Amino acid sequence: MRRITAAFLLASGIAATCLAVAAGSAAENVSPIYGVSLPEGYRDWRMITVAHEAGKNNDIRAVLGNDIAFKAFRDGTRPFPDGAVIARLAYVYKSSPENDAVFPAPQSFVAGDPTNVQISVKDSKRFSDSGGWGYGQFENGMANQSEPLLKSCFACHTKLDQSKDFVFSHYSP
Amino acid sequence: MRRITAAFLLASGIAATCLAVAAGSAAENVSPIYGVSLPEGYRDWRMITVAHEAGKNNDIRAVLGNDIAFKAFRDGTRPFPDGAVIARLAYVYKSSPENDAVFPAPQSFVAGDPTNVQISVKDSKRFSDSGGWGYGQFENGMANQSEPLLKSCFACHTKLDQSKDFVFSHYSP
Repeated sequence: MRRITAAFLLASGIAATCLAVAAGSAAENVSPIYGVSLPEGYRDWRMITVAHEAGKNNDIRAVLGNDIAFKAFRDGTRPFPDGAVIARLAYVYKSSPENDAVFPAPQSFVAGDPTNVQISVKDSKRFSDSGGWGYGQFENGMANQSEPLLKSCFACHTKLDQSKDFVFSHYSP
Repeated sequence: MRRITAAFLLASGIAATCLAVAAGSAAENVSPIYGVSLPEGYRDWRMITVAHEAGKNNDIRAVLGNDIAFKAFRDGTRPFPDGAVIARLAYVYKSSPENDAVFPAPQSFVAGDPTNVQISVKDSKRFSDSGGWGYGQFENGMANQSEPLLKSCFACHTKLDQSKDFVFSHYSP
């Protein structure tokens, strides 16, 4: 009996360790506070709009959406339905000597290396404390673990008026 | 016999007129020189990259591609295979007081109204006189009929070095 119990405890211990390792490695790549991960295949999503942020960001960006988000953007549906996911892909904003050599005057600014990808997930129950939105920021596919950074997401988005459902972007036809 | 001939000629005339009208209305929406039309569903294509053209254009733009073009961009395949189609969607480049009101300083530039859509079609046989590319420019879905404008497409793209297969854009991951 003692041997069976010992074997059981050993097996349980190994199983628990395996579970903890699995949970640990999964947890490494989700955002703090919200637990948002980088959605598989987001780079293939359809384009909602484009923008340039000057100042500290100094990036050029594309906003993509999964099918639920894209449809809501195109139809003007607000608030966004649960399941909508928006991906904001930012790149270094840089002039293009390669293009400018062809044009009559320097004028061309293009996307350089990626800076980060920000993900917004609409789930009105899961993220009820933040207007129904959960946030994550990813550099080279890895979730940024800064809690102050993640807290700044909703702090900024909540300044928009309610008709926008906490979303900056508008659909570009 | 004379009545039959007259009826036949009348019927033929009507048919010929109908054909001419049909051909005319189809021809209205293709580009001069190249005969390129606006591809159905291009707005749902995947995003290749984004850019800002200052100067006379003063636009912000997204470059989308059909599946053949997108794959070639992502894989770095040059020259592009026949069947590749690239859509360049340009919008008025404008500052966003709406966004800037939320940020610490004015910094946000977004896409305003669409200006035009330019389509590049790779078909090495059909467009053998222009490096295998045919071009079209569309405003509000209608093909621009300016021959000098369309001539300027290849005149500009041909200034790029041959390794680029006459294409300015690079894929943004």
